[in-house]
Amino acid sequence: MGRWEPDARGRLTKAALELYSERGYEQTTVAEIARRAGLTERTFFRHYADKREVLFVGASSMEELFVQAVAGAPESAAPIDAIAAGLEAVSKVFAGRHEHSRQRQAVIAANAELQERELIKLASISAALADTLRRRGVAEPAASLTAEVGVAVFKVGFERWITASEERELSQLMRESLDELKAVTASS
Amino acid sequence: MGRWEPDARGRLTKAALELYSERGYEQTTVAEIARRAGLTERTFFRHYADKREVLFVGASSMEELFVQAVAGAPESAAPIDAIAAGLEAVSKVFAGRHEHSRQRQAVIAANAELQERELIKLASISAALADTLRRRGVAEPAASLTAEVGVAVFKVGFERWITASEERELSQLMRESLDELKAVTASS
Repeated sequence: MGRWEPDARGRLTKAALELYSERGYEQTTVAEIARRAGLTERTFFRHYADKREVLFVGASSMEELFVQAVAGAPESAAPIDAIAAGLEAVSKVFAGRHEHSRQRQAVIAANAELQERELIKLASISAALADTLRRRGVAEPAASLTAEVGVAVFKVGFERWITASEERELSQLMRESLDELKAVTASS
Repeated sequence: MGRWEPDARGRLTKAALELYSERGYEQTTVAEIARRAGLTERTFFRHYADKREVLFVGASSMEELFVQAVAGAPESAAPIDAIAAGLEAVSKVFAGRHEHSRQRQAVIAANAELQERELIKLASISAALADTLRRRGVAEPAASLTAEVGVAVFKVGFERWITASEERELSQLMRESLDELKAVTASS
């Protein structure tokens, strides 16, 4: 793996986000990211396949964490409560990452290709959650609908966390968003 | 607009879907679509900008119809009931289009680029619905969450309609899916 660079990955991630924010994602090259991080391009490619991966490297592990928490919820838990457990587990990953997440979101919002990639990420999470709920014995269409609700709450709760004027607990915002969703869908 | 071809658009649409189904979307050319329809490429381009547009030409009018029905719901209607009115209005567009919709869905499911486009279409509808609800005086995050619920019900209801062994009323499936979503999110 070449010589050891102290926290090379963290430095590359930070440099990439800074440059994407300053110049735009399109305009930034891997060479510039490496230079800003005080590392070589070769080191960059030991950590990331390309400049887009810097922004999406956590997607598959986040999906896995979400799915595992839903799968691991007590057998007696209602589907929506299993989803709530998943949201709780996923929220923990973002502890201490508010500024990083805020920057990342702004970069994505400014680029159509990245927005598409983000939509694909969320659709993949939804499909994985529906599959997990079916394995828990939840029938269709309840499984797909509950999974979609989970992703909707994740999206909206995350957006609120990012844009909140002062930092709040992500897990708290997820719970509030789920409660709000329950309130808006409550039959009158 | 050149000489009049009886139902040129309908013939082109049908020919395109047939070819996408038989050979795959990637492998089909505009020349082949025109030939199958008994028309010229020039006529194709009078109706569609490219071969992808055949599959997405209805997207913006569908979004508009959805939005207008939500905007036009009685002032006293709860946000979720305004969304239900939107689902009802959109369902009507698909009357007599079951086979077309089934074919279209299969073509999209087989192609990653088309799936992305479909996700963008749904995200655009969600954003437009949230905007419409905010104009109706619905606060955030309720507006975004209700809009996401609307799109989730649309997706799942539509999927059920497409895959149902016998043809059922789309509006009925939308209502059932919304009721099911209300049931899964009902607090225990």
